[in-house]
Amino acid sequence: MADALKIGIAGLGTVGASLARILTTRANELAITCGRAIEITAVTARDRSRDRGVDLSRAEWFGSPEEMAQKADIDVFVELMGGAEGAADRSVRAALSRGLHVVTANKALLARCGVELAAIAEEKGVLLNFEAAVAGGIPVIKALRESLTGNTISRIYGIMNGTCNYILTRMEKEGLSFEACLKEAQRLGYAEADPTFDIEGNDTAHKLAILTTLAFGTQIAADQIYLEGISNISIEDIHAAADLGYRIKLLGVAQRTESGIEQRVHPTMVPHDSVIAQVDGVTNAVAIESDILGELLMVGPGAGGNATASAVLGDIADIAKSRPGAQRVPVLGKPAASLEAYQQAQMQSHEGGYFIRLTVLDRAGVFANVATQMAQNGISLESIVQRANGGSASDAKTIILVTHATTEDSVRKAVAGIKGGNYLSGEPQVIRIERPKPL
Amino acid sequence: MADALKIGIAGLGTVGASLARILTTRANELAITCGRAIEITAVTARDRSRDRGVDLSRAEWFGSPEEMAQKADIDVFVELMGGAEGAADRSVRAALSRGLHVVTANKALLARCGVELAAIAEEKGVLLNFEAAVAGGIPVIKALRESLTGNTISRIYGIMNGTCNYILTRMEKEGLSFEACLKEAQRLGYAEADPTFDIEGNDTAHKLAILTTLAFGTQIAADQIYLEGISNISIEDIHAAADLGYRIKLLGVAQRTESGIEQRVHPTMVPHDSVIAQVDGVTNAVAIESDILGELLMVGPGAGGNATASAVLGDIADIAKSRPGAQRVPVLGKPAASLEAYQQAQMQSHEGGYFIRLTVLDRAGVFANVATQMAQNGISLESIVQRANGGSASDAKTIILVTHATTEDSVRKAVAGIKGGNYLSGEPQVIRIERPKPL
Repeated sequence: MADALKIGIAGLGTVGASLARILTTRANELAITCGRAIEITAVTARDRSRDRGVDLSRAEWFGSPEEMAQKADIDVFVELMGGAEGAADRSVRAALSRGLHVVTANKALLARCGVELAAIAEEKGVLLNFEAAVAGGIPVIKALRESLTGNTISRIYGIMNGTCNYILTRMEKEGLSFEACLKEAQRLGYAEADPTFDIEGNDTAHKLAILTTLAFGTQIAADQIYLEGISNISIEDIHAAADLGYRIKLLGVAQRTESGIEQRVHPTMVPHDSVIAQVDGVTNAVAIESDILGELLMVGPGAGGNATASAVLGDIADIAKSRPGAQRVPVLGKPAASLEAYQQAQMQSHEGGYFIRLTVLDRAGVFANVATQMAQNGISLESIVQRANGGSASDAKTIILVTHATTEDSVRKAVAGIKGGNYLSGEPQVIRIERPKPL
Repeated sequence: MADALKIGIAGLGTVGASLARILTTRANELAITCGRAIEITAVTARDRSRDRGVDLSRAEWFGSPEEMAQKADIDVFVELMGGAEGAADRSVRAALSRGLHVVTANKALLARCGVELAAIAEEKGVLLNFEAAVAGGIPVIKALRESLTGNTISRIYGIMNGTCNYILTRMEKEGLSFEACLKEAQRLGYAEADPTFDIEGNDTAHKLAILTTLAFGTQIAADQIYLEGISNISIEDIHAAADLGYRIKLLGVAQRTESGIEQRVHPTMVPHDSVIAQVDGVTNAVAIESDILGELLMVGPGAGGNATASAVLGDIADIAKSRPGAQRVPVLGKPAASLEAYQQAQMQSHEGGYFIRLTVLDRAGVFANVATQMAQNGISLESIVQRANGGSASDAKTIILVTHATTEDSVRKAVAGIKGGNYLSGEPQVIRIERPKPL
C-alpha cells in the first residue's frame, strides 16, 4: 500500500468536526477503497479546547490557517473556515503556492477569485476540489467537470438555497406568511439570525457564478447576476401560482443566449407537474441541459454538516486515489487560461413567460386599460383571472395575468404603463416563469 | 501538451457512430479540456461500408474486436458491441491483459463477469470504466464509485428501463392497455421486436446487479435477483393506484437487511407526491440512500445513442486527464479482492407495504373472509376499498387492500388462504409499495 495521504483541516466547525469523525471512524474502509490511508496530521481552529467527539491529539495544532498552510507536513489543505477574504484566502493561496492540493467548501472565496486560484493550482500541478461549495452533497461539480466533458451546455438552473426553499414550501403547505415561515426556519436552525444573505439570493448567486463558469467556460462573474430575493413573495402569489398549475421556487438560472450569458436569481414559477416542482423543504436540486447527454437533474441535501462533509470526503478520496503529480483535471472544467471573457446578456432581453399580479381599484375601464397595455407591448396572454378581493371592505380587485413568451423589456414597459394609469392600489407583482425541458 | 490518447472503437452502431462523430467534431475543445488530443486510431465493426456520418479513413480497420484488442496501437479499448459472451468478452479480456484501459457500455458482460474483469484491470493498473452500462447518461457509477466514498449505503433503487417506464406512463396518461402501449413503444423504437428482456425486468436486473456491488461492496450476483415484469399490470391497477395516491413504476431495488442484501425488480407503487413518481416516459432515475450524504436522486436519459455516447466520452476523458500508470480508482468501488460474498436476503422476509387487488364473486361472507385472512396473518390494513365492477353483467366485485408494513411471507400466506376460499373470479394482483425517504 502507498504512503498515507496526510491532510490538514483548517476550521473545525460543524463540517470540519463531522469530517474529522468520519475520517477517524472509517479509516480502515477508506484505506481499502483509496489504496492508502488518509491521516489527519494537522488541524487549526479558533477554539482548541472544544469537545468535537473525535480524538485529534495525534494531529499537530497550528495557531493559524496561514501557518498550517506554510509549515504543516501535509499533502492536502482542507479549508472549512469560510469567508471570501482574510485567512481563508491567504491560507488557500499559501497552500497552493507551496504545491499542496486544496479541498474547500468555500463558495464565497471561489466566486470572488476562483479563476486566480485555479491558475495557481494548474501551474503547480495540484488539485483544487470544491464539490461542497455548490449544492452541498449533490455531486454537480463532478458532473460538470468530468461526466459532461465534451457537451455544450445550454442552460443550468437549480434550487440552491435550502432556507428559501424551506420557507416557500412551508408557505404553500401551511398557508403561512413569509415572516412566520422565516421565524420558524430560524427557530429550527435553517436560517441565520440575519437571514439577508440567504433570502435576498446572494448565497444562490455565489453558487450560480461557479456553475456558470463550469457550464459555459467563461470567467467567474459573481457581480453580474440579476438578483431578486423571496421576501416580497406573498401567500397570495403562492395561491395564485397553485391555481394556475405552478409552484414558486427561488431558482438560480444561467443560460446561453444570442447576446451572451444570462445569470439570474429570482423567485420563479415552475410547472406543478415538473420534477423540480416536487423538491420540497431544505432539499436542493440542479438541472443541466446539454446537447449530447440531454437533461440531467440531481436532487439531494444542499447543506448540513454531514452532507457537506461527504462532499469534502469525496474530494479528498479523489486525491488519495491518484498518484502524486498525476492530476490534470482542470479546476474549472477548462484550464484557467482558456476561460473566455464573460459576456453578460442584458436582463432587458430576457425571454420567457411572466406572471403578473395587480391589485386595482374597482373602476370602469381598468381591465380594458391593462389589456391594452399588454397588447401595445406585443405581449400575448396565456390566461387572465380577475377576482374580487374576498373579505376586503375596500373596492380593490385582483387581476392575474400569465403571459406567453415575451421579453423582460416588454413586461417592464407594460407594467410602467399600467402604473401610469393611476388605478393600482398596491405595487404590481411580477414573477418569471421557467419551463424545464420535458425529461 | 502530452501525447494524444489513442483509442480503438469496437462496434460502430448507434452509440459507436455517435461517439466517433463527437470525438471528431469536438476534437479541439476536448484537447483543451483534457490536456491532450483524443484520436481514434483503430476501429472494428461488422459492416465497414456503411456511412456513419464521420470520416474514419485515418483509423486502422481490424477484422475482429479480438484482433484489434491484441494488435492495435491504442491506449484505450472502447467496447460498444454488447453481448454477455463471445467477441465482447474475449476482446475485453485481451485488451485488459495487454494493459489497455477499457471503456464499455456492456451491462450484460459486467453482470456476468465484472469482478473477474475488475481483477485483471487492477492487476494491470489500468482503468475499466462503464458509466454507460447503467442508466445511460446518468452519472450514477461515478457517484457511487467516487462521490460517495466513505458512505455506508442502505438502499439504492431506480427506474432503469425506459421501455417499461414509457409503457406505464402511457397506460396512465392515455388509459390504454399494456398491449396497446407496447405496440406504440415498438413503433417508436422504444421497444424491441422481442420485448421480453425489457418488459420482464431482465435488463433492469443486469443494471441492478452492478449497482448492488458498487453500493454494498459485494460480489456481483445477477442470478440472485427476485424478478417480476410489468406484463400483467392492468389499467385497473393503474387506476386503483392513482385513486390511492400512488403511481406504478418498474423499480430495481437493492437494500441492506439484517439477513443479507435484497435485490428485486418488480412493478412498484410509489407515492404520487414523491419526486421519482414524476419521472415519466423513457427517462430513468436512480436514488441512493446513504448515512453521511443522505438521499441523492439523479434523473436523466437512460438510453439513446447520444446520451450513451456522452457517458462513454466522460469515461474516456477521465482516462485522458490522468497520466499513464496513475490510476488507482478501484473498478467496482473497492478492490476486486476485497469484495465480500453476496449474502442473499430471502424474498419471503421482505418487509414493506402491499397493494392487493382481488376480483371476487358477490357472495355473503366474502369480505369477512378476506379480512379474516389478513388478520390471521398479522397484516394490518391502511385502506380497504370494495366496489362493484362497473358495466359488467357478472356478479364480480373488486376488493382493493393496501397494507401497512408487513412481510412477503405473510402476504403470500394470506393470498393463499383467500384463494382457498373459492370465491375469487380471477388471479389476485399483488404489487409492492416502496416509500422513498423524504428528501
